[in-house]
Amino acid sequence: VPQIESLLGRLARVVGPTNVITDPDLAKPYVIERRGRYTSLPQAIIRPASTAQVVEIMMLCHQAGVRIVPQGGNTGLTGATVAAPGEIIMQLGRMNRIRSLDARNFSVEVEAGVVLADLQRAAAEQGCHFPLSLAAEGSCQIGGNISTNAGGVSVLHYGNARELVLGLEVVLSDGRVWNGMRKLRKNNTGYDLKHLFIGAEGTLGIITAAMLRLFPAHVRQATAWVGLSNVDDALRLLAKLEDRYSGELTALELVPRVALDMVRGRWPDLIDPIAAIYPYYALVELTSPAPGADLRDGLGDLLAEMAEDGCVRDGVLAHNAEQTKTLWSLRERISEAQGYFGGSIKHDISVPRSRIPAFMRAAADAVGRAMPGVVIVAFGHLGDGNLHYNLSQPVGMDRADFLNRWEEMNRVVHDLVVLHGGSIAAEHGIGLARRDELARYTASVELDMMRALRSAVDPDGLLNPGKVIDLPSR
Amino acid sequence: VPQIESLLGRLARVVGPTNVITDPDLAKPYVIERRGRYTSLPQAIIRPASTAQVVEIMMLCHQAGVRIVPQGGNTGLTGATVAAPGEIIMQLGRMNRIRSLDARNFSVEVEAGVVLADLQRAAAEQGCHFPLSLAAEGSCQIGGNISTNAGGVSVLHYGNARELVLGLEVVLSDGRVWNGMRKLRKNNTGYDLKHLFIGAEGTLGIITAAMLRLFPAHVRQATAWVGLSNVDDALRLLAKLEDRYSGELTALELVPRVALDMVRGRWPDLIDPIAAIYPYYALVELTSPAPGADLRDGLGDLLAEMAEDGCVRDGVLAHNAEQTKTLWSLRERISEAQGYFGGSIKHDISVPRSRIPAFMRAAADAVGRAMPGVVIVAFGHLGDGNLHYNLSQPVGMDRADFLNRWEEMNRVVHDLVVLHGGSIAAEHGIGLARRDELARYTASVELDMMRALRSAVDPDGLLNPGKVIDLPSR
Repeated sequence: VPQIESLLGRLARVVGPTNVITDPDLAKPYVIERRGRYTSLPQAIIRPASTAQVVEIMMLCHQAGVRIVPQGGNTGLTGATVAAPGEIIMQLGRMNRIRSLDARNFSVEVEAGVVLADLQRAAAEQGCHFPLSLAAEGSCQIGGNISTNAGGVSVLHYGNARELVLGLEVVLSDGRVWNGMRKLRKNNTGYDLKHLFIGAEGTLGIITAAMLRLFPAHVRQATAWVGLSNVDDALRLLAKLEDRYSGELTALELVPRVALDMVRGRWPDLIDPIAAIYPYYALVELTSPAPGADLRDGLGDLLAEMAEDGCVRDGVLAHNAEQTKTLWSLRERISEAQGYFGGSIKHDISVPRSRIPAFMRAAADAVGRAMPGVVIVAFGHLGDGNLHYNLSQPVGMDRADFLNRWEEMNRVVHDLVVLHGGSIAAEHGIGLARRDELARYTASVELDMMRALRSAVDPDGLLNPGKVIDLPSR
Repeated sequence: VPQIESLLGRLARVVGPTNVITDPDLAKPYVIERRGRYTSLPQAIIRPASTAQVVEIMMLCHQAGVRIVPQGGNTGLTGATVAAPGEIIMQLGRMNRIRSLDARNFSVEVEAGVVLADLQRAAAEQGCHFPLSLAAEGSCQIGGNISTNAGGVSVLHYGNARELVLGLEVVLSDGRVWNGMRKLRKNNTGYDLKHLFIGAEGTLGIITAAMLRLFPAHVRQATAWVGLSNVDDALRLLAKLEDRYSGELTALELVPRVALDMVRGRWPDLIDPIAAIYPYYALVELTSPAPGADLRDGLGDLLAEMAEDGCVRDGVLAHNAEQTKTLWSLRERISEAQGYFGGSIKHDISVPRSRIPAFMRAAADAVGRAMPGVVIVAFGHLGDGNLHYNLSQPVGMDRADFLNRWEEMNRVVHDLVVLHGGSIAAEHGIGLARRDELARYTASVELDMMRALRSAVDPDGLLNPGKVIDLPSR
């Protein structure tokens, strides 16, 4: 196929031959998806080192009509960076420069391939705080975080990735660059294009760099692990915390006992923070960048008050950074532990917080009827109304049989999510995994608008084909 | 013209004959723009009472090819709701219901025509706080606030109107309804369409209702009026406040002495809060929804510390609600006072905060050279980097001669804004007044994208024609 060879040859002249990967062994980190549900079959993986190289690549691919799948750390959970035969994966990991950091303006300019944890560290070194934080932060890249509008554990206070973006640099499908790298807090000059690209999963343009907000570093912190009887009490605790610590409440994560059992089953050395067993736990974190009263004392008092009401059953406070890390690791290892004990059918849902108890009752009932013995592992960002409502296989059921019922169980859960005014994709995005469900649960006027926007911005359909929303075949 | 008569007749059957206004006297509140720079010449003003009526109107107008200019309180400052001959103004003031308020979820569902101050009051009655606040709040409407992504005096803490929107209901140009009335804090199901309509000034759809965020009501507050030697010191004060009160700092407004002189010249009964005269003043407000130490004591201590450094020259704290209101009224009356003393050429600019002193020096120099004796009245939202860099006519200059140089002086100021990485439309939007400047200062790739989006969403060009961005003539 001379045309394709010629394209790869020309691409190799742009990025250097070692950065056009066709060898299956070298391609592995980019083509195997984390959960193993999809495998990519791209004609090549290309790794540009600069925006100028991305431009040249897009111009060449546009000319050749070759489709491009942008990829960051390949840590996504919805197959959004999976490539079909003939497509090219553009992996942005070499674009990992922090271009500048302005501590006075609380802003930082980064390339798309900067690893999230590296950005957190760079901010901390300048006395600032970059608040986006999630389990994959050691390998996910900021371009992917923005493209999926990533959530994580401090959304309650700082918002999703979207809220942290001041400006973007984006290469369009024809190779033109939109330079929207603004540092401004206020700007009403026409349509706010950055919001179009944030969360678009690479279907509208390739984010090559971003101007991001920074915050003052914390000087006070308190972290507690709290035993609770039920989810209603967790919401009561949340309301009380918001009353008293609206400016300081950074995280409230829900951990059901079954999840803690899985984590301790997988890593027996990990210690149960509370001796007695409760149906639910909340991991609570307060932080403040300003001096003031000890937050641990205040949080301890609040928990004691709520213990008198019977809302809080028990609680422990972390007394140093090491203990804080230990409490968080119990939360962060749930997903991996769940995988260790068999198949897991995943959901990433949100409902209005006030609807959570009703949703959880209805969902427990419905999934139990659909699959007797199924184990519900519903955990996560209660403060945002966002739960990872995961299902583990019933004891004795075959793993493959269980996983074959993925779509069916998704349907049971998602029907109830929609009934309760919720979202079937709260923070992980749509990708391939949720595309058909998006179409199912979304009104046609909304689908039409999404298609019209996609066609308007990428008229040749070259960017991340098949993801988020299908286009009419041409 | 039988076709048009027939359309108005059919519209009258939808909304009732008294709500299709063609009488010039009755039309006055809707066709005369606040600053008197534009006059509308619509064939009619139509006032629907429900989303269903908006749908019928849009279907009829779409069929007839008649263009629609949506209008709220008609308080905008850029001519965004001005209608050309043959167009119809759709005024949404009758849609003024608060559909529901969920204090537990901190959300409220409102129709587009709700007056901002009414919404603030309704939230307060339920123990909540709706933070959008601006001088026109007694008559501006929430639909207009969202359509212009309004700013105001508490952006520093709560963000622009955009940040307060959870969901929207929008009628498209062909009469279809997009129901995006979500209550969710987290939702990544495809492109986030609400952000397209926010700040689009009615060019992409007609916002008929919104789901908005609420916040806990304040229980502590401190307001101070601070005398300063220069803008650098105002920025130093800001940095100190953000260090110590990052969670409580709600507003920092800059008031130059010349502005205070104008306000006191116009309303001689108003008292100068500080006896001595300083070149600049800052109006500082701290608020908190949580109990704790008295914020006035804390703010007083901080000002005293900064007085020792020489940064703060003097300051007074409001000791009750009445005094707080008095201090704010000095700030809020600047615009009106400036108008009383002659012509005023307006700018609504932002630059990164760290660039403000350099911008102000350069701009003072440039406008002084372009028009000797011009009076610079640069005031406003220093905390956001957003100043209303207004110019008053030199003593003795004819008002009309001065105002005839509007575009020329805009150019002088805006060239410097762009040079300092700023925005020529920080919070008022583009409308007609800034449309040609938007085109001048914006890269062609960005203009092309905006045009493509507009054509994709409103292919017949029926919505608010001529505003924000021109389309290729058809």
